[in-house]
Amino acid sequence: MTAQPISPAERAARARDVFGHLPPHIDAAVLFDDQFIQYYSGFSFMPTERPIALVVVRGGERHLFVPRLEREHAEQTGEAEVILDYAEYPGRVHPMRQLADYLAQQGLESAQLAIDHDGYPSVMGYHGPTLSESLRTATIHRRPDAFDHQMSLKSEAEVRLIEESIVWGTQAHHLLQRYTRVGESEHTVEARASKEATEAMTQALGPSYRGQNRWLSGAVALYRGQIGPASALPHATTTGARFQAGDTLVTGAGAAVWGYLSELERTMVMGEPSPEQQRYFQHMLNLQDIAFAAVRAGVTAASVDQAVQAYFAQEGLQAYWRHHVGHSLGQRIHESPFLDIGDERVLEAGMVLTIEPGLYVPGLGGFRHSDTILVTATGMKCLTDYPRDLESLIIPAS
Amino acid sequence: MTAQPISPAERAARARDVFGHLPPHIDAAVLFDDQFIQYYSGFSFMPTERPIALVVVRGGERHLFVPRLEREHAEQTGEAEVILDYAEYPGRVHPMRQLADYLAQQGLESAQLAIDHDGYPSVMGYHGPTLSESLRTATIHRRPDAFDHQMSLKSEAEVRLIEESIVWGTQAHHLLQRYTRVGESEHTVEARASKEATEAMTQALGPSYRGQNRWLSGAVALYRGQIGPASALPHATTTGARFQAGDTLVTGAGAAVWGYLSELERTMVMGEPSPEQQRYFQHMLNLQDIAFAAVRAGVTAASVDQAVQAYFAQEGLQAYWRHHVGHSLGQRIHESPFLDIGDERVLEAGMVLTIEPGLYVPGLGGFRHSDTILVTATGMKCLTDYPRDLESLIIPAS
Repeated sequence: MTAQPISPAERAARARDVFGHLPPHIDAAVLFDDQFIQYYSGFSFMPTERPIALVVVRGGERHLFVPRLEREHAEQTGEAEVILDYAEYPGRVHPMRQLADYLAQQGLESAQLAIDHDGYPSVMGYHGPTLSESLRTATIHRRPDAFDHQMSLKSEAEVRLIEESIVWGTQAHHLLQRYTRVGESEHTVEARASKEATEAMTQALGPSYRGQNRWLSGAVALYRGQIGPASALPHATTTGARFQAGDTLVTGAGAAVWGYLSELERTMVMGEPSPEQQRYFQHMLNLQDIAFAAVRAGVTAASVDQAVQAYFAQEGLQAYWRHHVGHSLGQRIHESPFLDIGDERVLEAGMVLTIEPGLYVPGLGGFRHSDTILVTATGMKCLTDYPRDLESLIIPAS
Repeated sequence: MTAQPISPAERAARARDVFGHLPPHIDAAVLFDDQFIQYYSGFSFMPTERPIALVVVRGGERHLFVPRLEREHAEQTGEAEVILDYAEYPGRVHPMRQLADYLAQQGLESAQLAIDHDGYPSVMGYHGPTLSESLRTATIHRRPDAFDHQMSLKSEAEVRLIEESIVWGTQAHHLLQRYTRVGESEHTVEARASKEATEAMTQALGPSYRGQNRWLSGAVALYRGQIGPASALPHATTTGARFQAGDTLVTGAGAAVWGYLSELERTMVMGEPSPEQQRYFQHMLNLQDIAFAAVRAGVTAASVDQAVQAYFAQEGLQAYWRHHVGHSLGQRIHESPFLDIGDERVLEAGMVLTIEPGLYVPGLGGFRHSDTILVTATGMKCLTDYPRDLESLIIPAS
């Protein structure tokens, strides 16, 4: 059976349980981040200039505050106990004023409020006061870390959705690998692989399937410009390159399944790998093995990065280091904690993380695999199932 | 000749001229929003947990603050006079601490700083202090409106890029219309139209072409779930619907060209339109005509929405109203000002806006065209060139 969406009961429990992650004096949580709103209410939407907020009062009752434009959408797909709307932004009365008035009506005028963000972020030309400025009598506590921590502990239902995402990301990646050929363009190969994998996925998951993910749509596999020497830029963003013999390639693949995603990345080589490519590829595998071995519940996120950085130092590879070992993920493409030397949070069973240490060699390319793993009491379970060895990742160049 | 990327000279002028949009006592601007950073420095990147900031000092010198991961990428594609990097987030020393120390070294410890956002937003599990908390000796002025205003006044080079985007969005839309057939799935039609239009565009624009846009990749045309009765939800987000005779359809199309985009939306009908569909379609055309006639330099954004809302009232259509008339656009898919009854900003020649009043009839569907227009001294120039009449927008159902 394919994975099912998160149940309304599970989302309601999240809203009740959030107070277990907050200090005991907090009366309500006020959330402006679309990903937290989706996490607690199931409402998945496109953030625009029109603020949307979710108020969760102690006990778990959810009040969803939306523009008129989104009312029916929220009613049909959200799971809040109360939905209220305002006309428009900026409108005759600023939405933040209306939200503050509503909070006061609900008896929260002088409450202790935990927030993710002080007001709505101005990502699309929105301008407005912070919540602190709009409701001066309340005490505002900025606690994004608390909401992030709850979100980082995946339930069985969440892990099943991530595994379903992996199934289709894997299929997209197999197609990407199959269609990649010398002279082809990046976009054409990506579009073909992603289209076919998405069609297979929507066929398998049936008409009720929804992606509901802000970062991915359907099942996708891509290069994002990480082709040849440009693969030495870990976050390259081009789309027009053509494949040539000798290229080092770095891929990415995943799928959106009921709000959840996954990450699969592989380093591939066009044609017979050079000794240099072989050497850095092997170092990359060694780094990933070190990280796999270092992960388990009870250790700090920092300790995993320390183990990996020790190998960089020991092998004299520091010039090729660019980033930490990995990140949590699930709804967001990056979530916290981070496998970073400065992140002292303790890994817990149920966290889902990427393991993706990389080496970047100017002029030659990048070397990075990314696997999605589940932290367990004794170590980890690798959820990704895709060949890691160089032999399997050579694209014939002739 | 196809449109050219914004020149380094034009970007440098933006950085010098930003102080003309700010109070005279401001010493420097500190920007955390990726879109402002791209606007002033040309650096286009994927925002993650790792903060990136741009400091512009009076006179226009730009200091780009990036994680080590992005250093070469910023050097190769950004246009800042100074690029400095920090190791990682959270790293051994928090990046916001390093940024504050750098500002102090630059003599800005007690400066008057204009900001877009007080610190880096926590969109991907980032946690950190605000800039106010990190640099308590400086005076911080939150002025996103000033940066937005500069961004809203498009240069000739920007308009040419938007027009180039329109060329390819139009082509994608023609293909979408051609491939839409009863029984086909939304995703299949969108993927085919977008793939072919993107291939045609990348062929025409040549190997140096870059999209560099956060919202669009390539040339795309899509439905976003606005199919049949679901088109009554203006911001539906599904992808799996199949077309049926009688459906009202609402589309969207655009293309990413050197950081810029455009918007084309059309209402279409599968098969012979019902009298009801004809009636609402005609009201929608009337509303758009009213808005077209109301736009010109010197009037307020609010006045355009007032004219449109007067028609809703006069015709007794208020039950079908959901949103304001349109928004500015260019780099962002939505920018300010907004054609909204509460937006008292004055329209100026050179602003580029969408005109897209809509009617949403539960059970039947949504009726909305969106055209991209340029505000001129005497009125407006419609940049979109796509049929608006119902006859041209009927998809044969048999």
